[in-house]
Amino acid sequence: MSVNTKLYEGKAKIIYRTDNPEVFLADFKDDATAFNAQKRGSIQGKGIINCTISSKLFQQLAAHGIPNHFIDSPAPHQMLVKAVKIVPLEVVVRNIAAGSLCQQTGLPLGQILSKPLVEFYYKNDQLGDPLLTRDRLLLLELATEEQVDRITHLALQINDFLKTFWQECGITLVDFKLEFGVDSQQQLLLADEISPDTCRLWDNSETDPNRRVMDKDRFRRDLGNIENAYQEVLQRVLTVVEKN
Amino acid sequence: MSVNTKLYEGKAKIIYRTDNPEVFLADFKDDATAFNAQKRGSIQGKGIINCTISSKLFQQLAAHGIPNHFIDSPAPHQMLVKAVKIVPLEVVVRNIAAGSLCQQTGLPLGQILSKPLVEFYYKNDQLGDPLLTRDRLLLLELATEEQVDRITHLALQINDFLKTFWQECGITLVDFKLEFGVDSQQQLLLADEISPDTCRLWDNSETDPNRRVMDKDRFRRDLGNIENAYQEVLQRVLTVVEKN
Repeated sequence: MSVNTKLYEGKAKIIYRTDNPEVFLADFKDDATAFNAQKRGSIQGKGIINCTISSKLFQQLAAHGIPNHFIDSPAPHQMLVKAVKIVPLEVVVRNIAAGSLCQQTGLPLGQILSKPLVEFYYKNDQLGDPLLTRDRLLLLELATEEQVDRITHLALQINDFLKTFWQECGITLVDFKLEFGVDSQQQLLLADEISPDTCRLWDNSETDPNRRVMDKDRFRRDLGNIENAYQEVLQRVLTVVEKN
Repeated sequence: MSVNTKLYEGKAKIIYRTDNPEVFLADFKDDATAFNAQKRGSIQGKGIINCTISSKLFQQLAAHGIPNHFIDSPAPHQMLVKAVKIVPLEVVVRNIAAGSLCQQTGLPLGQILSKPLVEFYYKNDQLGDPLLTRDRLLLLELATEEQVDRITHLALQINDFLKTFWQECGITLVDFKLEFGVDSQQQLLLADEISPDTCRLWDNSETDPNRRVMDKDRFRRDLGNIENAYQEVLQRVLTVVEKN
């Protein structure tokens, strides 16, 4: 399979067309951005780490009945995926209050939510990825009501799986961001990636609120030791996958 | 009835206790603020104008079966109201895209919405009155599910009434903000005010996007002629009320 034109370059990945119109190639970059790309940097090895973690998790999720875009990983930083049209929503599932939820509601960092919160943000850099109500999402025709319900259902199922998975890694899943896409058969598939770039992950063996952070918050908040944290997450994922 | 201690001083009104624990006195001020009180000023005669318009509208709404806090207007800038505990929500009903809806979604100013949008904002100056999803509102326990449903129902009824009323005034109701309170019998009542401070009102006889503005946007956007616009709104309201 030969790689053709670049379809899209995002902050953390480049998506290429291939000679099969049903297949894209995702190339994971070491580039890191935060705060709507106002902060830019690089995390050495991130492309390979995130591609590897995502590949493993997508395979596990498929085995648990969650349809997703993963096909194969032909190189450590590359993933062949089903060609989808991305639904322009960032779907965030929250188990514990952190990040913008705290800033916008005053909830204290670390407060355990009585039930998981599924939130939708408009994937639109120019607007700063604003929070959407269900009515705004439908008004903007970013998805149909059926898609919103289906995405909510899948997001909660994925959360159930991931909470358990990360727990086996000795990690608490605080929150995470998902993206979904629609393939040529109009099937809704989980897409994008699942990695320390898109999950808030707290090390169960640390109680210090800075030391426990194993995700992109180390970059956002200049906590240092970013590469080590990502590497440690990868090692734990590989160990648990091996064991299962 | 004698007026006792000041209960609360807001940006546009002071609320006093009276010797009847079931009754408060609202004193409408000429002070004007915008952008979460970052912009401050005064609109001469606003207190009397807003108190008069609100009194007339509350009486009309009561006659149309919308329970509200209005009792009497003992002076042109004063309103006796039923003592309520305010639900900490700003309930915004939108018929046409304007203001933060445009900024946050990219919808063009003036786009007519396919159906009215009822939105909830957290009445919290420190947090900048952020938009709330239904789930966030319930998570923060700002209201019960029953209250949210009841408020939504009332807000749409009020919108139906007000759209027609303002149309009779030759004015298009773009959007407006409501507040609700709970009285000592746990009854939910429409509270606060309905005025050019809380409604976006466009003069039907003007097509120029600046000249048509008859509400607090003249202050927010330094369009000038604020007092005249408020006075004109009052005159039209009085004429329509007289006629009805």
